[in-house]
Amino acid sequence: MAVDRLNSTFAALADPTRRAILARLASGEASVTELAEPFEMSLPAVSKHLKVLERAGLIARGREAQWRPCRLEAGPLRDADEWLEQYRRFWEESFDRLDDYLRELQWEERESGRNDPRRKGRHGTAND
Amino acid sequence: MAVDRLNSTFAALADPTRRAILARLASGEASVTELAEPFEMSLPAVSKHLKVLERAGLIARGREAQWRPCRLEAGPLRDADEWLEQYRRFWEESFDRLDDYLRELQWEERESGRNDPRRKGRHGTAND
Repeated sequence: MAVDRLNSTFAALADPTRRAILARLASGEASVTELAEPFEMSLPAVSKHLKVLERAGLIARGREAQWRPCRLEAGPLRDADEWLEQYRRFWEESFDRLDDYLRELQWEERESGRNDPRRKGRHGTAND
Repeated sequence: MAVDRLNSTFAALADPTRRAILARLASGEASVTELAEPFEMSLPAVSKHLKVLERAGLIARGREAQWRPCRLEAGPLRDADEWLEQYRRFWEESFDRLDDYLRELQWEERESGRNDPRRKGRHGTAND
């Protein structure tokens, strides 16, 4: 996968408006006007974001002169996902470690509950 | 997950040197000098990249005055991965479609192979 493409993909994703535009396009094609609606933004400002997305290959636009619908192109997102995949073991490992730690804590609590006479008292019978 | 954090994560990842630094740290802690080695870059230039990564929470640095090793922090990468996850169905769907198409092609080829006398001839016996 081209290094340049990863650069432009990540740069394009570093903006909340552009991410929101992609989220909207995930549910289907839309015109620039439709895309601009949820944002308090001028059409030229939205067009600028669309150009960044288009240059990064994250969207494509129809050729109809009047209505040039935008649609999502998932290829660059897949490449970004593949790049991130090599780091997945790090958070999976840390979740595993957290899991081990919590299990150990629970075990220790159970053990100390068994040996601690005060604890026994609290949960004991009326004879205590 | 905070919008700002996704912005700074993606912005930090939009640079090949910073991605290479993260890849190096994936195999263990390293000092700034060690990180600078593979790049034809001054230490200040590398330090600048490290600051971007540190501000984005992608690396953490030790507190030893002499040797402040950098280590990978996977949290922001996990958040970026989670964000990308919602788009995964797009490339999985297109792979599925490609798969269907290829299967259809194979089937058609097999069918036409069965009915096409020329094809039979080509793979036929010495009697042809």
